[in-house]
Amino acid sequence: MPLNRVTILGVGLLGGSIGLAVRSRLTSCKVVGYGHRRATLDKAMEIGAIDEARDDAAAAVAGADLVILCTPVGLLAEMLRLIGPSLRDGAIVTDVGSTKRSVIEAAERLLPPGVHFVGSHPMAGSEKRGVEYARTDLFENATCILTPTPRTDGNALATIERFWQAIGMGTIHLSAEDHDRLLADISHLPHAVAAAMVVMQMNAALPLAGKGFLDATRIAGGDGALWRDILHDNADNLRESLRRFQRELAHLQLLLELGKATELEAWLNAAAARRETLLQQKLREMTPD
Amino acid sequence: MPLNRVTILGVGLLGGSIGLAVRSRLTSCKVVGYGHRRATLDKAMEIGAIDEARDDAAAAVAGADLVILCTPVGLLAEMLRLIGPSLRDGAIVTDVGSTKRSVIEAAERLLPPGVHFVGSHPMAGSEKRGVEYARTDLFENATCILTPTPRTDGNALATIERFWQAIGMGTIHLSAEDHDRLLADISHLPHAVAAAMVVMQMNAALPLAGKGFLDATRIAGGDGALWRDILHDNADNLRESLRRFQRELAHLQLLLELGKATELEAWLNAAAARRETLLQQKLREMTPD
Repeated sequence: MPLNRVTILGVGLLGGSIGLAVRSRLTSCKVVGYGHRRATLDKAMEIGAIDEARDDAAAAVAGADLVILCTPVGLLAEMLRLIGPSLRDGAIVTDVGSTKRSVIEAAERLLPPGVHFVGSHPMAGSEKRGVEYARTDLFENATCILTPTPRTDGNALATIERFWQAIGMGTIHLSAEDHDRLLADISHLPHAVAAAMVVMQMNAALPLAGKGFLDATRIAGGDGALWRDILHDNADNLRESLRRFQRELAHLQLLLELGKATELEAWLNAAAARRETLLQQKLREMTPD
Repeated sequence: MPLNRVTILGVGLLGGSIGLAVRSRLTSCKVVGYGHRRATLDKAMEIGAIDEARDDAAAAVAGADLVILCTPVGLLAEMLRLIGPSLRDGAIVTDVGSTKRSVIEAAERLLPPGVHFVGSHPMAGSEKRGVEYARTDLFENATCILTPTPRTDGNALATIERFWQAIGMGTIHLSAEDHDRLLADISHLPHAVAAAMVVMQMNAALPLAGKGFLDATRIAGGDGALWRDILHDNADNLRESLRRFQRELAHLQLLLELGKATELEAWLNAAAARRETLLQQKLREMTPD
């Protein structure tokens, strides 16, 4: 299905970057942007992220072939309820949220029959927020996770897949359950841990922070409201990830308490080797053949 | 006191970088390097990090005005025992170890009267290891913590302080006890946490790792044996830091369990704001007036 009209709901860092990429790569496609702040819409127009600005979400989706929800995770259900009646028959709706079970449940409940929803999670971003940080190449060489369900329309899935690939991403499929469980481990837990490590510091220790501490806690610089939505929405999985992480720390406490230097070294070396393998794999992915 | 002859014991990343910096900034000073591997000494000579290579530590320190111990923390006491008898009267000895109580205790016990020890911790480095990564500018704009005790000789302290300043660092003073306690929080804990976060991951989650995870765990790529020494040597403080960190995680678990979204957002925002303040402070330090 050709995409002639794409509507982006929420033109921040991700929405703005999608707009820039679509206008650069899919030049026959018109991009409509919705935002509730006039200044954001003006800025999105100014940097060329959108062709048309709307401050009414329902009006913005009218006639759209593809609608991409880029609002925070906590607002997705309300947004789906708002736009449902205005979507044309056959329209495809996707999102860019960091959790997938709840948005799929909401879409299957709230969207009219004849409208197709496919959950997406483009794994790109930054601790920065706002359309002023949008970049045409934000998605290049990144991976987009698609989370089809047994009820997902095959043609809609294929269209969404080609869309993300057209703006530079590789795509993989996961069930929403697997997505939320794995992302709790590899993304939501590290965020929570970085925040905890900043909060627990004594004032006297902070001036001694080096590059290691700043890098290790960079993700804790992200927007609190956005991450509250993500952690809250995926709380069951995150709590389980935290429990496994806390067991690992308890193991370390024991090695330190018992003075098990050999085991401590083996544990540290295992971590270093595993990270090095991962790093080499990621570097290969970023260097196309 | 003029420094005509400086001996570096252990010419790896730190020792090699000190050699490069001394030969570039203190050109009248001769640099002698000790290492137990011939290949390392050859490489140190080749890149110009040292003027003279020795594979016998006692011989290497003969006639030195300043001796800098750059061997791993776990070998410092043995090295002090080895060189003690060969040090000239009035020689100054320092180290670059990441923990300070144990090396000071060993130095006060093992060095002959008339030799002055001052503990140093230049806070520069990398997860890389080896003289091939040595850099002349590794210490520029970094901070060196000096840990004098009531028994420290004032002239020796002043000489060490000027030495580190001459190769580009700012200096601050802390007691060894405060140093080890604060570094447990801001450096040793983040290292342990990064390692635990790599080790606890499920295999299926690793391919989904993004830049956030790689940055948050970069420090876990450090050498296992070096970090075993540091964590083991500072185990009492690290265990206390881990306990406080685990209490913070337990607090987060509770917020998630009770669905306290408002408190969760406030907690995340507090972390983001505190890190931003720290980052701005660090950026100001790196931009001299």
